[in-house]
Amino acid sequence: MNNNPNAPIIILVRPQLGENIGKAARAMLNFGLTEMRLVNPRDGWPNPMAGPTSAGADIVIEQTQVFDTLAQAVADIPNIYATTVRKRGVTKPLVSPEQAAAECFTSAGRNAILFGTERSGLATGEVAMARKILTVPINPEFGSLNLAQAVVLCAYEWSKTQNMASPPVTEIEPAAPQIELDGMVEQLFGMLDERGYFFPKERTEVTQSTLRNLLTKPAWNSGEVRTVRGILSVLKKGKRSGRVL
Amino acid sequence: MNNNPNAPIIILVRPQLGENIGKAARAMLNFGLTEMRLVNPRDGWPNPMAGPTSAGADIVIEQTQVFDTLAQAVADIPNIYATTVRKRGVTKPLVSPEQAAAECFTSAGRNAILFGTERSGLATGEVAMARKILTVPINPEFGSLNLAQAVVLCAYEWSKTQNMASPPVTEIEPAAPQIELDGMVEQLFGMLDERGYFFPKERTEVTQSTLRNLLTKPAWNSGEVRTVRGILSVLKKGKRSGRVL
Repeated sequence: MNNNPNAPIIILVRPQLGENIGKAARAMLNFGLTEMRLVNPRDGWPNPMAGPTSAGADIVIEQTQVFDTLAQAVADIPNIYATTVRKRGVTKPLVSPEQAAAECFTSAGRNAILFGTERSGLATGEVAMARKILTVPINPEFGSLNLAQAVVLCAYEWSKTQNMASPPVTEIEPAAPQIELDGMVEQLFGMLDERGYFFPKERTEVTQSTLRNLLTKPAWNSGEVRTVRGILSVLKKGKRSGRVL
Repeated sequence: MNNNPNAPIIILVRPQLGENIGKAARAMLNFGLTEMRLVNPRDGWPNPMAGPTSAGADIVIEQTQVFDTLAQAVADIPNIYATTVRKRGVTKPLVSPEQAAAECFTSAGRNAILFGTERSGLATGEVAMARKILTVPINPEFGSLNLAQAVVLCAYEWSKTQNMASPPVTEIEPAAPQIELDGMVEQLFGMLDERGYFFPKERTEVTQSTLRNLLTKPAWNSGEVRTVRGILSVLKKGKRSGRVL
């Protein structure tokens, strides 16, 4: 069993079929991953269809946590990978399952891998919350990888890192947990909204995704996020209001 | 598509469910393998249950060859790997999927990987026909890997030896030239100075270094720097000044 705190958390975003949740749980436990989170599962949770296909991966199923939103599900996690099959117009680092596993192995702070809904994957706004894109290099002429298979490849690559020596200790401050980043983002969005930045209204979502990508990229740590929030507070005030020290 | 003659042939020995044959075909084609052989499939062949689960991997399904015995199925193949989960009392070299893929890649002569029946795997006499044992290193406390998942891991490792394996080149824009970053930093410093942020004066240099580190970390590209400067301009203006589009 894998109790390594660097082991990635598997987050299924808007999964449709309970059977697939069970299969994902089985694939995880096959390779020592135990922590699954669900975001807004279509048929609720617990789901009686998940048990049989999990084939006895009870420890995963029973500990699964459910969240209403992706933001809540990743609130405590600094290092987030979004799985996508197709290239998207996002400018984030792209890694293979092997690279992602190696990064998780040596990361500061916890890791999570996001998997989108079976039919259409992750939405643009969901991808925007991730620091990196995880893509399985697949046959370009036949690219339909199902959910459990995508999970098993990521879990398998993680398991390979576990045979290695103890990881080198990194001295980089971990990126701030997502909830701290979100607080900063919301503060900025609020200020921009007051000034009419989000115009026209129908472009708001796209613009916000762009800004979120831009602000996720730095991997700012908690102290840096606090500094930026301090800057925003100062900019929000009138001139010469002075700095609170 | 993979036409490398070294690509392993996937041989399913006494498979029970047509659904699983279809899933195996899909897993193969996902990672560029196209040649499947069946030994004495329980429900005959073709099997109408295989089509739907193959999800369009017709090229694999249509070319599948069927044999009455394993001996016939491997008659033309020099390098045979038998997959097993548990160690058996056989004295053969044991390889991982990764090692097997590397060996196939550089082998003289064709390669095949044998997968046993879903319920109980390969029989002892079937394992005896193989040159090596291929074992997926799996959670010792939860070792039930299903057929399609065992196939997908082997196919995935093979694909890594091919060009397909290299992840698509990331399209990340290079970081903005320093002069552009400096322009942004100076713009922010000016705004902060107006608001009395740099206080006390003798700390200004240290504070500015801190902010410069923070703003250098993201490696924002030119477009992102322009976006941030646009945000700063909006924040500098009074409320509801509107966005210039």
